[in-house]
Amino acid sequence: MSDPLRIALAGLGTVGTGVIRLIETNRDMIAARAGRPIEIVAVTARERSKDRGVDLSRYAWVDDMQAMAARADVDVVVELVGGSDGPALTLARSALDAGKGLVTANKAMVAHHGLELAELAAIKKSPFAFEAAVAGGIPVVKGLREGTAANALNRIYGILNGTCNYVLSEMERTGADFDEMLQAAQEKGYAEADPAFDIEGVDAAHKLAILAAIGFGTRIDFDAVQTEGITQVRASDIAQADALGYVVRLVGIATLEDHGEGPRLLQRVRPCLVPFRHPLAAVTGPTNAVVAEGDFSGRLLFQGAGAGDKPTASAVVADLIEIARGQSGAPFSVPVTALQSCAAADPGDRIGRDYLRFTVADRPGVLAEITAAMRDAGVSIESMIQRSRDHDGGEVQVAMVTHEGPERCVTEALSLLEGSPSLTAAPLVMPILKD
Amino acid sequence: MSDPLRIALAGLGTVGTGVIRLIETNRDMIAARAGRPIEIVAVTARERSKDRGVDLSRYAWVDDMQAMAARADVDVVVELVGGSDGPALTLARSALDAGKGLVTANKAMVAHHGLELAELAAIKKSPFAFEAAVAGGIPVVKGLREGTAANALNRIYGILNGTCNYVLSEMERTGADFDEMLQAAQEKGYAEADPAFDIEGVDAAHKLAILAAIGFGTRIDFDAVQTEGITQVRASDIAQADALGYVVRLVGIATLEDHGEGPRLLQRVRPCLVPFRHPLAAVTGPTNAVVAEGDFSGRLLFQGAGAGDKPTASAVVADLIEIARGQSGAPFSVPVTALQSCAAADPGDRIGRDYLRFTVADRPGVLAEITAAMRDAGVSIESMIQRSRDHDGGEVQVAMVTHEGPERCVTEALSLLEGSPSLTAAPLVMPILKD
Repeated sequence: MSDPLRIALAGLGTVGTGVIRLIETNRDMIAARAGRPIEIVAVTARERSKDRGVDLSRYAWVDDMQAMAARADVDVVVELVGGSDGPALTLARSALDAGKGLVTANKAMVAHHGLELAELAAIKKSPFAFEAAVAGGIPVVKGLREGTAANALNRIYGILNGTCNYVLSEMERTGADFDEMLQAAQEKGYAEADPAFDIEGVDAAHKLAILAAIGFGTRIDFDAVQTEGITQVRASDIAQADALGYVVRLVGIATLEDHGEGPRLLQRVRPCLVPFRHPLAAVTGPTNAVVAEGDFSGRLLFQGAGAGDKPTASAVVADLIEIARGQSGAPFSVPVTALQSCAAADPGDRIGRDYLRFTVADRPGVLAEITAAMRDAGVSIESMIQRSRDHDGGEVQVAMVTHEGPERCVTEALSLLEGSPSLTAAPLVMPILKD
Repeated sequence: MSDPLRIALAGLGTVGTGVIRLIETNRDMIAARAGRPIEIVAVTARERSKDRGVDLSRYAWVDDMQAMAARADVDVVVELVGGSDGPALTLARSALDAGKGLVTANKAMVAHHGLELAELAAIKKSPFAFEAAVAGGIPVVKGLREGTAANALNRIYGILNGTCNYVLSEMERTGADFDEMLQAAQEKGYAEADPAFDIEGVDAAHKLAILAAIGFGTRIDFDAVQTEGITQVRASDIAQADALGYVVRLVGIATLEDHGEGPRLLQRVRPCLVPFRHPLAAVTGPTNAVVAEGDFSGRLLFQGAGAGDKPTASAVVADLIEIARGQSGAPFSVPVTALQSCAAADPGDRIGRDYLRFTVADRPGVLAEITAAMRDAGVSIESMIQRSRDHDGGEVQVAMVTHEGPERCVTEALSLLEGSPSLTAAPLVMPILKD
């Protein structure tokens, strides 16, 4: 057996201690599969004295996180500190600068600085891997880099945030409203005390930007992701969707579009209506699932736990095994210099169907006003349901589904209605996922 | 860009021509991702003159298949001839003997001779890959070799045959019986004219044996797979299962069991009752899906097209890209010399619940006879339903679900009833998949 792969581990939260537990628990199996032992030599975190339930005495404790990168006895730095910038980024840069490999679970850092880090890794010919940054324990980064490598992908999309999926599928199961189910998620540990990052779709957007770069061979462009969270989705929307044959899911979706000006990348995170028969409709609870549609492979689904200490540790150590085997390739599937810059697509060009929900005053003429705006903007309505909200004096909901058409017409219709005193709340638009 | 990876392609059926189309269609993308072009240099098949809808004039035609392996201008032989032995095996051996890489979609050959070929490949330090042999376009071989590499797996199981899944899910959808839906599958091209290999479970067993070897690090042991097909499943069984909260799927399942004598490998292909909420219950039509349950990753699902020229070609070329990148590792995840011999588990030791269906004569005392046998064998019955088959004079079906217990008790109960004139057909036993 060859020399061990020597690891320095920065960050000892739940994922960090999960990685330690995994490496200790499956030590022999990992060595057999990696072709050599994987050994933690040094660890660091903010607080040394905290009891983490794992024995750290076998590893060197490093007080200065940045000093880890300089250690001669380290081959790979595992960054589990978190945060897109700050100490995590400084450590990542200095690790690669020092010629070490870098493995991270930090989706925010990869989404914001993944290109720079990949460039640095390429210069140093060091491995840089981040399987754990996308969809927890699901090997979807490897799935796209290797499994679908022969394919031109049409779409990459999925359920990328377990908190949102738990809340939405529990709203569906119980009929309860958003606030109540968010609180339930917090009580069960599926949502943070400050849930904004998850429920506003930012976490899913980080993951989507990474998947799009790998799948389409484009330079990662997090800022171009259009993000909308789930806070506006009501129990009545879910009931309405159900009556129409859909469930509501927060879907991150990336497509390469070409409307005559060359390829444009559309990246969006939005609550969507997913047809019952689509595999994503069956994904409930805090599960993640990613779909890649290749021109030869057809639709592939990767599903599993999207978060948690153990699944995330599984992904981190999978990267380490790949590095130990000497099989780590270009982080984004093609060399970073070959990644294409791709302008953001105009979402108005998207051809599709949408669900629209208006909350309106209960008085004559409102429906005529809405349908006139639709007509004037060129939106064709497939079906429409108007109903009073229970116990909600005077407020009426109008839900409709459009025929297929350009999204810009829907946007135009909404802008015609903007400021109308008939609308008592901002309308909600949810695209219908094409099957 | 480096030198091309030069391919010789043997077998020009639908998959072979699919591989040609894929390599031509996505040529530049493949080169970018592989780091070098992948070029077909020579092809062979039984009939040269047949029109296959692809232009073969760019490739050298080789009449003698075995001569392909000896060509100095070939790096990798792609074997798509089929058949566990015969010309396919001879070609595979001679390719590896000549120091060429070997890529194959031939599940029968890998299930029967994969160890020998892996040993030969190890000696020659040549790549040997067979992603396409398991579940068509789904990258589940890579998923197990790399994605779950850090995990001890508890179970590996899945829907591994698209023909059977199409037939069973269509029986479920339409309420029709087996023969009718098999015919429909044949008309739609989802079943062969001679469907025995699929509907008897042999094809699924080949794939299961391969997955078990990779997932558990055991020497592949196809002969130990206990295989039962779907020909005995009736529409009434599916209706009964539905009433109980299950669907019927042909599931290949491999587990490592230890009942005090060290690890034993249980490999089975059987129709099973799958709980509605389990992800495999949502898998309908000719789709395949594989679940790997790791001690850290939790449950991972890989789903997609299990057959077809394009998905299978996608998997073949994914292997070629891996070889071109220089990243192909041990075919079975650990070096072939490190694979463990593992005795077959006694299925009687399995602890679980079962669905039993008896077809009995409509006369007094039959139910007492059956329940007495159950009692004497120590089988505890959770629920039981007796009903007449429509328009089937005098025949009654008794369906029951057992409480959890050792499978040997169920076997014992059936043997007590064997030869009883009360039973008008052989009983059907389907295990209930543990969630």
